[in-house]
Amino acid sequence: MTGTTQDDYTDRYARRVRGMTTSEIRALFAVASRPEVVSLAGGSPYIAALPLDAVGEMMSKLATDMGTTSLQYGIGQGTVELRERICEVMTLSGIDASNGASPDDVVVTVGGQQALDLVARLFLDPGDVVLAEGPTYVGALGVFQAAQAQVRHIAMDADGLVPAALEAAIAEAGGRAKFLYTIPTYQNPAGVTLTEERREEILDICERHGLLVVEDDPYGMLSFEGEAPRPLRARRREGVFYLSTFSKTFAPGLRVGWILAPHAVREKLVMASEANILCPSAFAQGAVTQYLSTMPWREQIKTYREIYRERRDALLDALEDLMPAGTTWTRPDGGLFVWATLPEGLDSKAMMPRAIAARVAYVPGTGFYADGTGTDSLRLNFSFPAPERIREGVRRLAGVMEQELAMRAVFGPTTPHRRRGPAGADAPGPDLA
Amino acid sequence: MTGTTQDDYTDRYARRVRGMTTSEIRALFAVASRPEVVSLAGGSPYIAALPLDAVGEMMSKLATDMGTTSLQYGIGQGTVELRERICEVMTLSGIDASNGASPDDVVVTVGGQQALDLVARLFLDPGDVVLAEGPTYVGALGVFQAAQAQVRHIAMDADGLVPAALEAAIAEAGGRAKFLYTIPTYQNPAGVTLTEERREEILDICERHGLLVVEDDPYGMLSFEGEAPRPLRARRREGVFYLSTFSKTFAPGLRVGWILAPHAVREKLVMASEANILCPSAFAQGAVTQYLSTMPWREQIKTYREIYRERRDALLDALEDLMPAGTTWTRPDGGLFVWATLPEGLDSKAMMPRAIAARVAYVPGTGFYADGTGTDSLRLNFSFPAPERIREGVRRLAGVMEQELAMRAVFGPTTPHRRRGPAGADAPGPDLA
Repeated sequence: MTGTTQDDYTDRYARRVRGMTTSEIRALFAVASRPEVVSLAGGSPYIAALPLDAVGEMMSKLATDMGTTSLQYGIGQGTVELRERICEVMTLSGIDASNGASPDDVVVTVGGQQALDLVARLFLDPGDVVLAEGPTYVGALGVFQAAQAQVRHIAMDADGLVPAALEAAIAEAGGRAKFLYTIPTYQNPAGVTLTEERREEILDICERHGLLVVEDDPYGMLSFEGEAPRPLRARRREGVFYLSTFSKTFAPGLRVGWILAPHAVREKLVMASEANILCPSAFAQGAVTQYLSTMPWREQIKTYREIYRERRDALLDALEDLMPAGTTWTRPDGGLFVWATLPEGLDSKAMMPRAIAARVAYVPGTGFYADGTGTDSLRLNFSFPAPERIREGVRRLAGVMEQELAMRAVFGPTTPHRRRGPAGADAPGPDLA
Repeated sequence: MTGTTQDDYTDRYARRVRGMTTSEIRALFAVASRPEVVSLAGGSPYIAALPLDAVGEMMSKLATDMGTTSLQYGIGQGTVELRERICEVMTLSGIDASNGASPDDVVVTVGGQQALDLVARLFLDPGDVVLAEGPTYVGALGVFQAAQAQVRHIAMDADGLVPAALEAAIAEAGGRAKFLYTIPTYQNPAGVTLTEERREEILDICERHGLLVVEDDPYGMLSFEGEAPRPLRARRREGVFYLSTFSKTFAPGLRVGWILAPHAVREKLVMASEANILCPSAFAQGAVTQYLSTMPWREQIKTYREIYRERRDALLDALEDLMPAGTTWTRPDGGLFVWATLPEGLDSKAMMPRAIAARVAYVPGTGFYADGTGTDSLRLNFSFPAPERIREGVRRLAGVMEQELAMRAVFGPTTPHRRRGPAGADAPGPDLA
């Protein structure tokens, strides 16, 4: 039959699939998961810090005493019990009844990723433009590519998204921009945070141009110095979609996230989710509900904060002590990531195989851009490896960079190839996103 | 801002969303969930038949002893342990190494619904045609509508899909048909099964025309008389996508299903799933893996079979004893559903409010067609309610029908309005799908 060869399937793919290409660096990440490799490439929380015995007891009760509901189908929007708890959690960030937050407008999702995918399904037609920070979350690039949308990156500096750059991009998009996708707090991968003043400025710009805002806030509670600035949603109730997840504050293995949506669109989001997954897992929702009802979840967040602060310090100290001259990096006040920029002429993607050979892994900057830029930078994670491992990883990375610089001194500058590949062509796997 | 009113959001929706309308009968189903209502509308397995204490113990171990992996991120394709177990499960249906089944070609999904959505994302462009049984799974109609595809229904009889009708539909589609979506065994909602002879005939037709086959098999193991005919995938390895789920053989609350895909497309499916959900729940996958490794799952399936056989008999007997003349229905050899056709002139959708008032619920036939037909039929579920409740429900339904017929005798035939509404406009919620 005509369906028997790879070519025949390829001929049948939907247009949205044709741009999908697998990353040449994915194979390297498989190697990077070996124990002898220090991986600074991941994005995983330090789950060992959870009280696993107590969680186990909770899971047991959930199945034994509540199994006829927790193991059964649920409703598409998610249980009202969890949506009420989610509203309690959001009050810690200043999102509450005073700015119109209600369990009725919360849609429970399969982690933050499905939340983002649902918003894209609701608003993006092929050819639409999405404005996003450059660099931005690799998983978001995958969503926008699948939606056949075009991503325009907005420059950031140490204060986050640059308002003038946003204005310019909106003008350039000429009405084709559907929304701004932004991670204002402890941004992945850049590790920078949008300042108070800029939050108001950015919201004013979007309001003036009638641009919707998709605010992704997985890291806001993981602050190391005082509290994070209030989310955009806490400042504007209309035109802002607030997305978050329990993956960083509890556990990613349950895949529970949410959208707080403007009331007018909530029902459409639920229908889109039902077409996608029928309903979110009743067991996973029950687990998060029980966790938030019966366990000291606020203290757990403090625990994560302390562990990650120590590890961020270990990473920043190691970079300070060991990186070759000409290397620069961000200094995050929270979250999981540091963004480093290499000395002139080094190519983070070209360097990857040699880094893996030296038993250290990172994510090359190209994974976080839709346009193939980012060869001069890379992302380093500090939430998962222990402080001494982090320092050893940086030592190995510095060694590889010194070798590259030495070769360059001998053979002259190797101009980094600025590949204009399809979005996400360098995307790492989920465990690295 | 321009995003402050419902109209403003509506103007921004993607084209795929514009056809999305909420069902007027959804509100009725909310009422139908009240305890005094006998609901024959659901599609839920009888979870109380599970050994919940043992499941609870298993869940406890999974978090306590394996938490650092079961509560962590996983990989997009799903764990190799679960994919190996899934291949063991499929051997019971005759899908094994001899016909090329391999864990490498299995993609773990968020229930059968995401499996279907991923296949649609991979192959469907707006305007493409999908061929499907009429009636068909309501959740599939939601997927195809979201993909902006057109559904052409193929007639069924007591032996399942009618080959001549498939031939005609392929010819009519004139090359725009991307695949045949079929539930060959204990079909939802019709309760019929494609015969052995017809399976070969249907496969030959699809092969001859180069039409891909998407085989949805959630019910195949729930047989009441002997074993079900072997799945289509057990007869052809190329051109057939095999979709199934643990929702009916274990528990739907975990949302774990899978696709066995032709090797050439498996990687694209994984990338599509990562863009959608990043990765399936490691905890849910661990739960299913442990369940299949440490618990008597084959015996549990036998238990479900026995319970459902008794309930099917209760439903068929009650229909036989109580239904007004002119009513016909299918006699399923397995699965969860009976499809009933009303006496001339009765309208299952128009009758719904009166049925709810009489404290009985069903799903009107219109929910299972993309073209608004089905007003003369309805779906009855027998897996969830106890036998005596089933009989009481049929008694109430028969009473409502008698009244309708009496009114009709007095006021003359009320021609059933054949609404040509958008697909899924009568779609019930997930708990009824």
